[in-house]
Amino acid sequence: MSPLPADMFPPTLGVGLPPGRRPALVSVDLVQAYFDPGSALCLPSEAVLGPAARVLDGARQAGVPVVHTRVAYDAGGADGGVFLRKLPALAGFAGGGPLSQIVKEVAPAPGEPVIVKQYASAFFGTSLSSTLTSHGVDTLLVVGVSTSGCVRATAVDALQHGLVPVVVRDAVADRAEGPHEANLYDLQAKYAQVVSEDEALDYLAGLR
Amino acid sequence: MSPLPADMFPPTLGVGLPPGRRPALVSVDLVQAYFDPGSALCLPSEAVLGPAARVLDGARQAGVPVVHTRVAYDAGGADGGVFLRKLPALAGFAGGGPLSQIVKEVAPAPGEPVIVKQYASAFFGTSLSSTLTSHGVDTLLVVGVSTSGCVRATAVDALQHGLVPVVVRDAVADRAEGPHEANLYDLQAKYAQVVSEDEALDYLAGLR
Amino acid sequence: MSPLPADMFPPTLGVGLPPGRRPALVSVDLVQAYFDPGSALCLPSEAVLGPAARVLDGARQAGVPVVHTRVAYDAGGADGGVFLRKLPALAGFAGGGPLSQIVKEVAPAPGEPVIVKQYASAFFGTSLSSTLTSHGVDTLLVVGVSTSGCVRATAVDALQHGLVPVVVRDAVADRAEGPHEANLYDLQAKYAQVVSEDEALDYLAGLR
Amino acid sequence: MSPLPADMFPPTLGVGLPPGRRPALVSVDLVQAYFDPGSALCLPSEAVLGPAARVLDGARQAGVPVVHTRVAYDAGGADGGVFLRKLPALAGFAGGGPLSQIVKEVAPAPGEPVIVKQYASAFFGTSLSSTLTSHGVDTLLVVGVSTSGCVRATAVDALQHGLVPVVVRDAVADRAEGPHEANLYDLQAKYAQVVSEDEALDYLAGLR
Repeated sequence: MSPLPADMFPPTLGVGLPPGRRPALVSVDLVQAYFDPGSALCLPSEAVLGPAARVLDGARQAGVPVVHTRVAYDAGGADGGVFLRKLPALAGFAGGGPLSQIVKEVAPAPGEPVIVKQYASAFFGTSLSSTLTSHGVDTLLVVGVSTSGCVRATAVDALQHGLVPVVVRDAVADRAEGPHEANLYDLQAKYAQVVSEDEALDYLAGLR
Repeated sequence: MSPLPADMFPPTLGVGLPPGRRPALVSVDLVQAYFDPGSALCLPSEAVLGPAARVLDGARQAGVPVVHTRVAYDAGGADGGVFLRKLPALAGFAGGGPLSQIVKEVAPAPGEPVIVKQYASAFFGTSLSSTLTSHGVDTLLVVGVSTSGCVRATAVDALQHGLVPVVVRDAVADRAEGPHEANLYDLQAKYAQVVSEDEALDYLAGLR
Repeated sequence: MSPLPADMFPPTLGVGLPPGRRPALVSVDLVQAYFDPGSALCLPSEAVLGPAARVLDGARQAGVPVVHTRVAYDAGGADGGVFLRKLPALAGFAGGGPLSQIVKEVAPAPGEPVIVKQYASAFFGTSLSSTLTSHGVDTLLVVGVSTSGCVRATAVDALQHGLVPVVVRDAVADRAEGPHEANLYDLQAKYAQVVSEDEALDYLAGLR
Repeated sequence: MSPLPADMFPPTLGVGLPPGRRPALVSVDLVQAYFDPGSALCLPSEAVLGPAARVLDGARQAGVPVVHTRVAYDAGGADGGVFLRKLPALAGFAGGGPLSQIVKEVAPAPGEPVIVKQYASAFFGTSLSSTLTSHGVDTLLVVGVSTSGCVRATAVDALQHGLVPVVVRDAVADRAEGPHEANLYDLQAKYAQVVSEDEALDYLAGLR
């Protein structure tokens, strides 16, 4: 049950969005910058990594394609655009150094593409949509961070690109409880199917 | 002051994002569907129309280009994709009938383009970005509805496309207070400059 | 056999690109502007309309989704960008009047979406890719005009978006023989499967 | 004077497209794969490198931003989509090895971003447009290879994104004379300003 004040966040118009039979999984920005205590972007918890790793494993066992994203900018930040002006903490990604690397708990397996992105959405300024379409994908499971940032932007863009977005509630996380819950509310209201880890694993197991 | 619970929505990392000298204004989806009491999408209030109309007027007086958006689908909804599956209430836009028309309080002036879109972001599946770039625009003021839907998606995409998004807090609205405030919080945290109507009018007056 | 000088257009590296089992057909810009003798854009021949109509018919009989495109600009041409500066003849599409309407020989059937575009590619600034992806399409047959303009741009973008482009040689046309043949050469070399009308009809019949 | 048969390539409708005052320069795919005799993609000549290097130098002296592109795919080619099916020779870019590196004659200077792309257009699946917009760019000079492939696709997309494309005839090259000239014809006819090396250098010198 959401801890958001119910009077401020009433029931919504969106309906259930059944996932298709040809999903892919995107693991969004599970990089050192969000888990290294020395990073300006560090999240308060690593709790998302366990569920994310289990969903990744479920996808691999079901033969579902997995892609990863990480953020990196040119050494001088020339490709950071307005995003870098708004969020100077993103400068930690300039040069694509250690903060830009995926953490070991959810490391890419051999053959899984890692998409380098500059903006919030995993679709923006990348060839992700083309890769998914050329593989006949119809549904995109989303895990990663942060719920109010790259996860939401990716899920909204998945729908915009013609895919059913499935956001795994336990496998996405944010800096604070408010934006985490408020964005899951919006996603469920308008853009995506929001599911638990167990629901995601059941769905993946059903594809084998 | 935001009515959101402060413990759930703590201070954020984003900094001020100074608007540029060559703005445009986009008025997002101020159409009958959101103001006609007979529409499934009707908002609880028309209060947004006054501020939106005044900001539109300020832009016109400053010679700032204005564009409008409305939503329309093919008669059969073939171009509604997954969005129409998720939000069946959007079917009111099929055929581009009366619900899809801009309300008179904020009607387009002669020569102001009206962009027809199918998705949340005014940039997605439209040539808005090209139009703005070909006019040398560097900043995009955003008014319209809804805060948690098309306004946020448009502001995020404005930043992603290389523009400074300026969201006019009083001239955007939502179905409920929670998503309205939570999305302004996110926008200010990560993607945009959120300003009051007065600040927007002062900025526009300063361009004359 | 191509009438291009063989020494200038040698054999190429591209291989055959087998079409998939879930095609759609796009009929590109078969509008009055290209067939009305009073239009600055008028082509020297209407010969393309017969083959295009027969391929459209084949697609409909096979239950293959059909979409159409036409070009239209805002009355003032504000959304024509740099394209309108480069090709002033495009001003005939401003306001979306008669020149912007699809000719009767290849008119849309009820339920077939008509995409309004401002640029060369049917994918650019439109939601075509989303529509195709949300319908599980893997292949895009292309008919229409002009070979060196909107047809080529659409075919290149189809490939870039993850689809197999199939260009029907007899059902596309250009202002002159040189650009027509040279662009079919490039398309076959790098981006698409170029087929005859008969091959297209056989392929469509095989899907029934 | 073009060696194309004049009866097949008649005069066209496009007019001159004056470059703006805020250009950038993109150097497209001047990588080992096109110049290493052991590569399946090797071009017959290195003659393009001299003019390209001189235009790069002119841009740097005028303080014009320079970006470079190279092609790279995931080790397994998962992100190569339909392009890799059509052109198996592109597999040389899988893993982003030596063939994917820019040749020394036109090497990036410190601070110049290098965009990694998977498709023909430098804009497709990259954040190039955002980078240019966020820097206020209005014009894009294009040098590189090949004229009928990535150069043309990039120039068409530059126009589609709202920029004036300026293609430097002497600083672009192709596998054969036919597609080189036929694509310059199309670019000049519809999409770009095609200029000589001297015209490009004069334009750049005029910006200092």
